[in-house]
Amino acid sequence: MNILSIIENKRDKKELSKDEIDYFIKEYTNGNIPDYQASALIMAMYLNGLSKEETFYLTDAMAKSGDVLDLTDISDIIVDKHSTGGVGDKITIILMPIVASIGVNVAKMSGRGLGFTGGTADKLEAIPNYNVDINIEEFKQNVKDVGISLITTNANLAPADKKIYALRDTIGCVSSIPLIASSVMSKKIASGANKIVMDITCGNGAFMKDIEDASKLAELMIQIGKNANKEVRCIITNMNEPIGYAVGNQLEIIEAIESLKGNMPEDVKQIVYCLGEHILIMAGKAKNKEEADNLITESIQSGKAINKFKELVIRQGGDVSYIKDTSKFHEAKYVIPVIANSEGYVEKIETEEIGKVSSFIGAGRMQKEDIIDLKAGIVIKKKIGDMISNGEVIAYIHTDKEDKIEEATKRVKDAFIITTSKVETENTIIKTIL
Amino acid sequence: MNILSIIENKRDKKELSKDEIDYFIKEYTNGNIPDYQASALIMAMYLNGLSKEETFYLTDAMAKSGDVLDLTDISDIIVDKHSTGGVGDKITIILMPIVASIGVNVAKMSGRGLGFTGGTADKLEAIPNYNVDINIEEFKQNVKDVGISLITTNANLAPADKKIYALRDTIGCVSSIPLIASSVMSKKIASGANKIVMDITCGNGAFMKDIEDASKLAELMIQIGKNANKEVRCIITNMNEPIGYAVGNQLEIIEAIESLKGNMPEDVKQIVYCLGEHILIMAGKAKNKEEADNLITESIQSGKAINKFKELVIRQGGDVSYIKDTSKFHEAKYVIPVIANSEGYVEKIETEEIGKVSSFIGAGRMQKEDIIDLKAGIVIKKKIGDMISNGEVIAYIHTDKEDKIEEATKRVKDAFIITTSKVETENTIIKTIL
Repeated sequence: MNILSIIENKRDKKELSKDEIDYFIKEYTNGNIPDYQASALIMAMYLNGLSKEETFYLTDAMAKSGDVLDLTDISDIIVDKHSTGGVGDKITIILMPIVASIGVNVAKMSGRGLGFTGGTADKLEAIPNYNVDINIEEFKQNVKDVGISLITTNANLAPADKKIYALRDTIGCVSSIPLIASSVMSKKIASGANKIVMDITCGNGAFMKDIEDASKLAELMIQIGKNANKEVRCIITNMNEPIGYAVGNQLEIIEAIESLKGNMPEDVKQIVYCLGEHILIMAGKAKNKEEADNLITESIQSGKAINKFKELVIRQGGDVSYIKDTSKFHEAKYVIPVIANSEGYVEKIETEEIGKVSSFIGAGRMQKEDIIDLKAGIVIKKKIGDMISNGEVIAYIHTDKEDKIEEATKRVKDAFIITTSKVETENTIIKTIL
Repeated sequence: MNILSIIENKRDKKELSKDEIDYFIKEYTNGNIPDYQASALIMAMYLNGLSKEETFYLTDAMAKSGDVLDLTDISDIIVDKHSTGGVGDKITIILMPIVASIGVNVAKMSGRGLGFTGGTADKLEAIPNYNVDINIEEFKQNVKDVGISLITTNANLAPADKKIYALRDTIGCVSSIPLIASSVMSKKIASGANKIVMDITCGNGAFMKDIEDASKLAELMIQIGKNANKEVRCIITNMNEPIGYAVGNQLEIIEAIESLKGNMPEDVKQIVYCLGEHILIMAGKAKNKEEADNLITESIQSGKAINKFKELVIRQGGDVSYIKDTSKFHEAKYVIPVIANSEGYVEKIETEEIGKVSSFIGAGRMQKEDIIDLKAGIVIKKKIGDMISNGEVIAYIHTDKEDKIEEATKRVKDAFIITTSKVETENTIIKTIL
């Protein structure tokens, strides 16, 4: 077996065997195959596609390229949740304490933000002293003791995926459905869960721009899950506007805390309930949607949800007084209103642009090594379909960087497309795929 | 401009602009673009193709990436000849002295052998003391003084092509018609000739296996030539058997010398005359084929051709006594007959295999750095259509390597496919494309 013949086979649209894919992943991870050969193979995969079998072999090989967590000593049923990323996505921080309060064990690792998208690990760090970087034994112990742990991805999970993802990013090979599916699923398989809900975001603030592609990705991930003995359920959600109102780490944590206290924006609520239903049914805590919905409502209204979050924060070393009173969070130096200079209805929000501006004023990273300002971000005050009067505030910019205010204000204003005729709001939950 | 967007454009089948291609070639040659990004782009070019315009921009950028020779002080008309390579191809060494003897200036650089194909520079070195590695000023002076110089490619010609070719070789991207055309033509343009004849070899001993592809390559090279103000004429020749009988450097030089003295194998003669006609017509030495043929025949019969070759050899420091008497060449230690053990007609010769066996017994290189044995090689005694009796010699193996004789003998025997029914011989000249 040699890499040249593997490249030639994929170049000529031949289906790669399990042995060929295993060889590539093993030798590339070991450093025995140079980047330039991997790069040619990945471009050939991007352009000539991968069959379902090839995609599974790739996923499986990447999952096994590093540690594969065994969480069976915690429970037979380990639930994981994944989002394909977007702008203002704080769902994990709201949903997971809720399902944990209902008795589902939650052992979840999350990534950091990059480009225009945020990451749950960064958001959790906005809580003073919250430690996202604990070792696997502590992580498991926390789940055993309080039923939940949310940390960053610090184990050696799917190192092949990490290496291939970094390469794909530099050679224009990110936007391939089988490559995305295998990347996501390799990490999920290595993380040790056996029941997985996927929130596939779709729209102008997501990697998936259209529903057809999002559906294909969903079906492929479900298929990979079946092959790997994991139950996967997918929902496709609307990312044509930020989720909720807050964008930026601390701003999103505050919105998440308020949501756990019962003050959920409508779109956040729909996503939390929809994913929650699937988790509770898969975990055997509810027989149907109605039962699941009742459990979720009861958890929030009774205070169980916010209490579970407090337990989590305390266990991870965070200062729980900020959860009790979100006014304790220090705001950014400048909080600048963005004022509408026309009137009508919000027809469209350039969501990726909102994410990019948020990064630009300090909330995000362009490179992995960049240091972020947890306080920075944007709070929108208007969503699609909302009426706007001339002179009304449409958003607030939170930043310490005075020199970026002017450009940021202009860009946020331009990101809101306003029309004079009434606008129909879009559905938050576009589709469920089981 | 950045390389990622160039990769994405080619990935998405968009036509690259001249600026984009110039940027890629310049920055890759400079080392500012890493191999893994070049590799992804080249695979995308391989799979999505290149338009005629893109192919010309690529050729032109590669041609200008290093020195571009100016030979106009020698003559207004500088003729070059190129072969896409094969087994037993000694045409340059016969043809160029002939046309030089008729008054066409010949300033030709040739490569070395690699893999199963030989290289003219190696073959010339089989003449004791012949120096292929002289500098450009000497090279030009020799052309001015004796009308011909044959050397190796030692100027900094098209370094971008050299770098890209080496990369293509490791990522399965050699066999692309636009990439081959731009590679060949970039070197030809940088070499300073304005009239070029191309021998596109086609068959089981060539890189081009079918006539359709060879024709496409010919048309593309002619088109590139037009854009670059170079007249290009192509012939497609049969490479389903070695050219002539000898394969291996010294063995081929001997066959070339004998050919110049008038003893040409039939297929060699056809190719020499056909290419010679085009050169003499392009150079204004003959009005038509008939005139050209007469000039060639006269050159050989009168001894002008062999005398021009002797002048060349003397001028390049070679020992001319070997040209006068080819029996002076020392044979290899072992000259072993390959004996037929069946009878019938030669239906097919596995030509690439003959080239590989010749390499295997010492005549060729697997890696650029390998040292070759100039004496080693194979002389076939039978060509397609020839009758073979049981016990008859079909080839001789020339080698110093005793331990390789057994395997080589078997492989050469197996490379001759013998049938009981009479076999039609194939045409040597398949097609001419102007």
